[in-house]
Formats: sequence, structure tokens, C-alpha cells
Amino acid sequence: MHILIIGAAGMVGRKLTERLVRDKRLGSAPIDQLSLVDVVAPERPKGFSGKVVSEDVDLANPGVAEKLTAARPDVIVHLAAIVSGEAEADFDRGYRINLDATRALFEAIRQEGLKSPYVPRLVFTSSIAVFGAPFPDKVGDEFFTTPLTSYGTQKAIGELLLSDYSRRGFFDGIGIRLPTICIRPGKPNKAASGFFSNILREPLSGQEAVLPVAETVRHWHASPRAAVDFLLHAMTMDSSVLGARRNLTLPGLSATVAEQIEALRRVAGEKAVRLIRREPDPTIVRIVSGWPQNFDAKRATALGFQAEKTFDEIIRIHVEDELGGKIG
Amino acid sequence: MHILIIGAAGMVGRKLTERLVRDKRLGSAPIDQLSLVDVVAPERPKGFSGKVVSEDVDLANPGVAEKLTAARPDVIVHLAAIVSGEAEADFDRGYRINLDATRALFEAIRQEGLKSPYVPRLVFTSSIAVFGAPFPDKVGDEFFTTPLTSYGTQKAIGELLLSDYSRRGFFDGIGIRLPTICIRPGKPNKAASGFFSNILREPLSGQEAVLPVAETVRHWHASPRAAVDFLLHAMTMDSSVLGARRNLTLPGLSATVAEQIEALRRVAGEKAVRLIRREPDPTIVRIVSGWPQNFDAKRATALGFQAEKTFDEIIRIHVEDELGGKIG
Repeated sequence: MHILIIGAAGMVGRKLTERLVRDKRLGSAPIDQLSLVDVVAPERPKGFSGKVVSEDVDLANPGVAEKLTAARPDVIVHLAAIVSGEAEADFDRGYRINLDATRALFEAIRQEGLKSPYVPRLVFTSSIAVFGAPFPDKVGDEFFTTPLTSYGTQKAIGELLLSDYSRRGFFDGIGIRLPTICIRPGKPNKAASGFFSNILREPLSGQEAVLPVAETVRHWHASPRAAVDFLLHAMTMDSSVLGARRNLTLPGLSATVAEQIEALRRVAGEKAVRLIRREPDPTIVRIVSGWPQNFDAKRATALGFQAEKTFDEIIRIHVEDELGGKIG
Repeated sequence: MHILIIGAAGMVGRKLTERLVRDKRLGSAPIDQLSLVDVVAPERPKGFSGKVVSEDVDLANPGVAEKLTAARPDVIVHLAAIVSGEAEADFDRGYRINLDATRALFEAIRQEGLKSPYVPRLVFTSSIAVFGAPFPDKVGDEFFTTPLTSYGTQKAIGELLLSDYSRRGFFDGIGIRLPTICIRPGKPNKAASGFFSNILREPLSGQEAVLPVAETVRHWHASPRAAVDFLLHAMTMDSSVLGARRNLTLPGLSATVAEQIEALRRVAGEKAVRLIRREPDPTIVRIVSGWPQNFDAKRATALGFQAEKTFDEIIRIHVEDELGGKIG
């Protein structure tokens, strides 16, 4: 089993790689090659006995997709993307990476298959940004995609291409719309969604964090561990049950900021909660007001995708996976 | 007022041109230039006092979109497309014309606007092929786009690009999903949907026609005259009421083949109906079974788009517009 991860240096890519190295197999198949690519060379995993290829390549550059697919990986995980804020700020770059590079990958797989039969499993990480306000209370599986960002547009186009290329038999694609990942490890960043993680991660390490919105704000979350489980399930599941509708809104946990804070209080106590400083930011308030709050992810749930059921669980996963079990 | 029609040599393009020439104005603005382009040079309209440019160009060729937009038309109507059957048979050609050429047009408008402000109205003809079975009884305005053809995929991508380019202020776009046009003038063709027109048009001229499906088949129709009215409305309406959701399922008439035949009987008598020969075609039966049957086009109706209310009306429009009022 040869697995190619495009965008392997990112947070989710690194965690997926670690997990594959630990499991040594995907489903029942032993992994004998990992190809890890990103715009910076992904770290080579330790303790993996199979072959590892790690390369810094830009998928949007001519010939890159062709070279990657010429090695005929059995499973391709396409995580590479320009994030929402940057795709909005730099229109050309967003379309180049999020649309053109994705299409180049899909087309390279098709061209490889025209030489001799080749139908890899392809997992594409899409986003709930394919949806745009106004929303129903819970966004259902058949709600239309009217993105309000260029990023969401590019992801929605990727989904359509994935469905068409799969329908034509050029690859076996599954698109998964990840919830917002919480708690993101690392440092606070400037993403508008950053505070959902910051207000938990920082206090758990004794640091202050800023809350720029009201506690009534509701959003849709899953842990990094759930994200890796989502990917593994999408890499291995029986895709024949998907029919022609190959893009799935994944399950998540809908919670208000107040509920996040209550969970923090239960897990880490009042002293952690006191480290959250309220500092309303009108720009972030406005951006977040356009985001979906809740989904009814019936289909993906029935297909075996699972997310956390409480924020206590999400916090405990962070403490286990990032803090060595210690709060503080 | 300078109007550019891309795909002006097709049936709808010709009828739109005729109407604009007859009206001499669009809304309240006199038309002083018509630019008509297609892969074959559109016929130059008679009796138009303004400037006419007629050219055979392929929008997918490098530089063509740039040249067309450099003339800064006030309104651009983009009708050009490879039809469904051909886009399915020739994957590369379908993507080249229906996606790449559309994107080239959008991008050329944006680039023109980067030189100095330029925000034309852009009307894009999409299709109900953006939807895919299984369907609810009536497909609502918020039903998701899961096309089952490459053509439908390409149109759905065009819609997403149109929304994003409009949201960013690069043009003022409206995408309209036309019903199946009935009665199409001309000769019977091999399109899977051809029989919906054939079984009326041919008997109205005393010719035999083949019905390849059961009379219970239900579909979604509007006349060529309604199609022109749709375009004129989209070219002139206040687009600010659209908000970010710029693609509309247009109203139509949902009717079974039996209802079409009953209308033919009322308008043209039993002798016309007897010219319909039943000859089931399993391929067409299968294709048509995947098509939507009915829509609830609330939004477009509220925005002033109107289609026929009865098939008698659709037939009478054909008799008036194509047969000089006479039934043969």
C-alpha cells in the first residue's frame, strides 16, 4: 500500500502521518510507502520501516501533479490549500492553488489512467465554507452550496470536479467537509476562527487568551484526533455506498462559546476560565456571524463517521495528545 | 447601450437578437451596438440602425475573451456551450468550452476592470442539469447541486464562479437555469430531450413524430419566447435584490407527455395526435428517468420571471412564431 499525502506538513497532515506510521497499515493492508509532499518538505517520520519520500513541491506548478501520480499511489489524500483569509486577500493565488492545482491533480490521475488502468482512492478535504448564510437552524445534507468566500467557492468547485471524475471512473473520490478543528495545537494565529481554540488551549497552559465575540456565538467543532479518524475512514470505507453524491458534511459538535467555557471550567477549573479576557472585535464578530452554527450530518453519521459528543471530550483529547496529560 | 451575445448563432441567441433589433432598446436605454459572436459567424440582423459586429470566434481560444471585453460592452449574454450529449462524449472538449472558456470570459472582464473601472451586467445561461436524481417531488430553490453529467458539472462550476466574481465586484452576474425549451423550432435532432418538442412540432406541420417514452413521463418546460423574456429580464432587472445568491431556477411548466398530447389535441385536433408513433427507446427511457420533473421556482417568480401556465399556450406560441399562425 502506497499512500500519497499532499499538504503533509500542515497540522492535519502531520497528525495523519504519525497515525499511519503508528498503525503500520491502512485497514488490513500493510503500508510500504509514504509519499509526503508540501510547499515545505514534510518532516520524515521516525520509526517507519517502509519507504518514505518527502518533497517540497508546489502542486500548482507544471508537471508536479503528473510526477506525483506517475508513482501510482493507491491512496491519495489531498489536504493542500490556501486558507480562507489568504484566498480572500489574494484572489489569483487562491484560485491557482485551491482550484487549478486541485484540477491538475485530478487531471493527472485521469491521464495516468489513460496509459493503463489506474483508479486510486482520492480523499479531498473540503470545508463547511462551501455553505453561505442565511442558514436554516441545522444545515441538512441536501442544503445548497452558496459560498460567501473565494475559498468556499474553490472548495465547492473541487467537490463538483471530484464527483464528476469519480462518476466517470477516473478515480474513486470522497470529499469530506471538516468541521472547524478545535483545539488546534500551536500558537494563537490570526485566523478569524482562531479564538475558538485559543480560549481553551492558552488557559490550559496557564496563558491568557482573548475572546473577541459574545459567548452566545455557536459553531461546529471536531478535535484534531477526530479529523484523523475522518480521513482514515474516508481512505478505507466502501465507496460504492456513496453513489453519485460523493461529498459529505461530516459530523461535529455544535456548541456555544459559553458551552466551551463551561467545559473548560469542568476540566481545568475556575483559574483557567479566569484567563479568558473579553475584548470584542467588530471585524471578527461580523465574519463569524456569517458562519454556519449547526448541521444535521445524517448521511456521514450513517456511513460511520464519528465526532466528539461533548466539549469536555474535545478538551481532554487536547490534554492527552498535546500536553502529555497535564494541565497547567 | 452595447450588448455582446456570445453564442448568438444558436436558437436562443438568434431569437434574442431578433427581439433586441425589434425593440431597439433594452429597458429604457437605446441599443447602439450589437456584438454577435459564435463559432460560426451569426447572421447580421436586418433593419438595425446601430452598429453590428458579427464574428466567428471560439471563446476558448487564447486572447478571444480579452478582445471581446476590451470593447467594454455594457451587457454580456453568455449562451455559448457544448450541449450535454457532446460534453459527455468528449470530456476534454466539454471542459474546454463549458468551463475554461466561461472562466476565461469572467477573468477577462476582471482584468479589463483592473485597467479602469468596468462592471458589466453578465447573464449566464445555466441549466437544470446542475441537479441530479434522486429528487424531491418539487425541487426547491435551496436544493443542492449534484449533477450527473459533465455538462451539469460544468454549468454548476460556472454558477459558482459567477457568484464569486459578482461578490467581489468584478461584474454584475446573474445565472439563470432555463427549463427545457419547448417547442424547439427546426428539425428533429438526436438530443435525448428532442422528443418533447418533436411530438408537437412535427404533427403541427402534418409530419409523423416518434415518442420513445411512456406518456406518464413528467418534465419541465418553457417556450422559446419565454426564454427570450427570461434573458431580457435578467439583462435589465435590479440585481441588488439578489444578494449573494445569484443563480436562479427559472419558472416553467411541469407537464406529463400525456398532458402535452392533450394540449395538442385541443389546439390541432385528433388528426395531429394520430401522427405520434409510440416506439419505446430503452436508452432514452433510462436517460430521461434521471431528469427532474418539477420545480418550485418561488424565488425567480417573486423576482418577476414568468413562464407559460398551460401547454396550449406553449403550442399557440409555436404556431404564432414559427408557423405564421397556421396549423399544417
